[in-house]
Amino acid sequence: MSLFVQKYGGTSVGSIERIEAVADKVAGFKAQGHDMVVVLSAMSGETNRLIGLASQIQENPDPREMDVLVSTGEQVTIALLSMALKKRGYDACSYTGGQVKILTDNAHTKARIQSIDVERMRRDLDSGKVVVVAGFQGVDDEGNITTLGRGGSDTTGVALAAALDATECQIYTDVDGVYTTDPRVVDSARRLDRITFEEMLEMASLGSKVLQIRAVEFAGKYKVPLRVLSTFDEGNGTLISLDEEDNDMEQPVVSGIAFNRDEAKLTIRGVPDTPGVACRILGPVGAANIEVDVIVQNISAIDGTTDFTFTVHRNDAGKALGVLQRVADELGAREVISDDNIAKVSIVGVGMRSHANVASRMFEALGQDNINIQMITTSEIKISVIIDERYLELAVRALHSAFELSEPKITE
Amino acid sequence: MSLFVQKYGGTSVGSIERIEAVADKVAGFKAQGHDMVVVLSAMSGETNRLIGLASQIQENPDPREMDVLVSTGEQVTIALLSMALKKRGYDACSYTGGQVKILTDNAHTKARIQSIDVERMRRDLDSGKVVVVAGFQGVDDEGNITTLGRGGSDTTGVALAAALDATECQIYTDVDGVYTTDPRVVDSARRLDRITFEEMLEMASLGSKVLQIRAVEFAGKYKVPLRVLSTFDEGNGTLISLDEEDNDMEQPVVSGIAFNRDEAKLTIRGVPDTPGVACRILGPVGAANIEVDVIVQNISAIDGTTDFTFTVHRNDAGKALGVLQRVADELGAREVISDDNIAKVSIVGVGMRSHANVASRMFEALGQDNINIQMITTSEIKISVIIDERYLELAVRALHSAFELSEPKITE
Repeated sequence: MSLFVQKYGGTSVGSIERIEAVADKVAGFKAQGHDMVVVLSAMSGETNRLIGLASQIQENPDPREMDVLVSTGEQVTIALLSMALKKRGYDACSYTGGQVKILTDNAHTKARIQSIDVERMRRDLDSGKVVVVAGFQGVDDEGNITTLGRGGSDTTGVALAAALDATECQIYTDVDGVYTTDPRVVDSARRLDRITFEEMLEMASLGSKVLQIRAVEFAGKYKVPLRVLSTFDEGNGTLISLDEEDNDMEQPVVSGIAFNRDEAKLTIRGVPDTPGVACRILGPVGAANIEVDVIVQNISAIDGTTDFTFTVHRNDAGKALGVLQRVADELGAREVISDDNIAKVSIVGVGMRSHANVASRMFEALGQDNINIQMITTSEIKISVIIDERYLELAVRALHSAFELSEPKITE
Repeated sequence: MSLFVQKYGGTSVGSIERIEAVADKVAGFKAQGHDMVVVLSAMSGETNRLIGLASQIQENPDPREMDVLVSTGEQVTIALLSMALKKRGYDACSYTGGQVKILTDNAHTKARIQSIDVERMRRDLDSGKVVVVAGFQGVDDEGNITTLGRGGSDTTGVALAAALDATECQIYTDVDGVYTTDPRVVDSARRLDRITFEEMLEMASLGSKVLQIRAVEFAGKYKVPLRVLSTFDEGNGTLISLDEEDNDMEQPVVSGIAFNRDEAKLTIRGVPDTPGVACRILGPVGAANIEVDVIVQNISAIDGTTDFTFTVHRNDAGKALGVLQRVADELGAREVISDDNIAKVSIVGVGMRSHANVASRMFEALGQDNINIQMITTSEIKISVIIDERYLELAVRALHSAFELSEPKITE
């Protein structure tokens, strides 16, 4: 007998019909003898409806009151699912975040979970009840309602699975798993049976929007096996779990190709190459609350100056350009250039760590298609390149093929 | 400086515009230096929308889960009003029933308040905040969400006023006070400036649907001055307070005329007049969960039998008739008659206690208009008669005029 924590997202509970379908699914697991904890999001559209009410009053309403307001969305769905389970003859009990004491800090609208009191849930599970918990919400130590930010229901699911030492945390969504890359770009993209937490983190942050990053980090930290599945189709989905080093030999070198069109590239040219110059450039950018992704600085030219390039989110490009122009004046730099027409393509895989020549295989594949690489950045399990946006699809297809990702893995 | 607890009903907070208007009203009181606690209902229509969702799943959903579901309605409005107050520069903080520990029994969907922890509200009031509390809800001693039943927000208002020892509990609604009778029946019906708790109870239970009876009982028990006012018009409304015996001399004999068309009359004729017969008739009626209102039994006829008549809610008449026919067979009674075409008209007033001849004045007024009285029942501050429904309006107008209710009272 296993204990599963299942999380269903907004589209999965978007209507009474769909809530009934979720009840059927949960009842099926319960009938097989499993202990079940179910975490729910608000009905799709409901959170936006509530935010819309608030925005009629004020553009930036009080965050504490926003949390009181939007946390009602999940409270509605947990009650409805519990009713649907009871109708099917399964005992069920719903709980808000506060009622199962999901204690968070007091950073309203983006709170972080600090602890969970499992005593009441354990008692319910022991007496055969299905426990239904509102995702996305908690309370601070003064009893104020907090929310974990958009997508926080995934985090609730993982946190409950960790606290209850569940067999698996299953995230039901409208895709049937994690793919080697976006199937809209590569026809032969394949669903992965397994992926490691680290790979998933790189895939997620690079634009495969299946799971909230925070939930994956949390799952990795507490070693909670995490499975992504479709609410609407059958299938085993993708299991995200620890890297099993024993299987290293059988592991593919690259697990997936991630990409991202949301960035812009900024270059400051002819900067005097003196110690502390990187800080003098990026300090003001950070102070302006702009997040920087890829950073490249090459060795200095013969004239003692260097070029400094980095990428930011495209929405921040204008703001970053303004900051950079002031910095350029102060430093006596030659010029500042900004470029929106770029894309980032990354190969991700824990197998890279034990395989040489992965980078050269990547560059070779891109070179064969005459795709110019503008920037390169690497980590233990990831190599990213910045290229002209026009070549994005071509690059993804070339790499998917070069690393033979359409072929099933050797391991299960 | 006073402490006011103000309760606004569903139509008063039925849209963002109206919530903004309530915020203006509350801000006005706060600006005058008063401490303010505001109790809100759900936006009009919202509770029914939520009940509609549940009824799509099951006709009689689990009561605990119903409470989790419908309590979200008030949680939405308290957040929105707090935002609107903050926008106006007034510090405000919203609380669910659970957050201010409105402890109830565990009778879901019709719970009763047992205690309230005022510590947190006191702290907020002392620091100048407006405290905004969700009406209609509480928690039981295990932390389960409970609701007080329809109209329970009035009760929340009164309970908070009692717990906080407020100057006054002000119930804002869509009527501007309590009238001598229904203005749709008598043009010259007049708003009362004051009425006693006892009178209000008699008026409310007899069909003047301004306030929830439970709230009035509660206010009377804890001596909380209760004022009914209109959200939409200016004016002082009607103050419901203790009977001030000193003013007896100046008090009018009758304060108002209440009436009710919702009853049906049942008579069992030719019952042997033996001890215990009333119980043998009404016992089975009560056992069938039918509430009985007026009961009349006259002295027995020469043949040793008597007639026994009582009224029930019109919806229960058919059921009651069935019960009564079985009883009649057992008792060997002559026949059972039921009559739907009746109405109850009552005069209400604490002044009655010290004035003779009130009853005869009532009967005289009805007699002058040839209205036949079918049943009579009296209490200390009320006389009710059952008449043919056709004469209801005529009777109300005759009594309103006979007791000079169109004239302003002598006292304020």
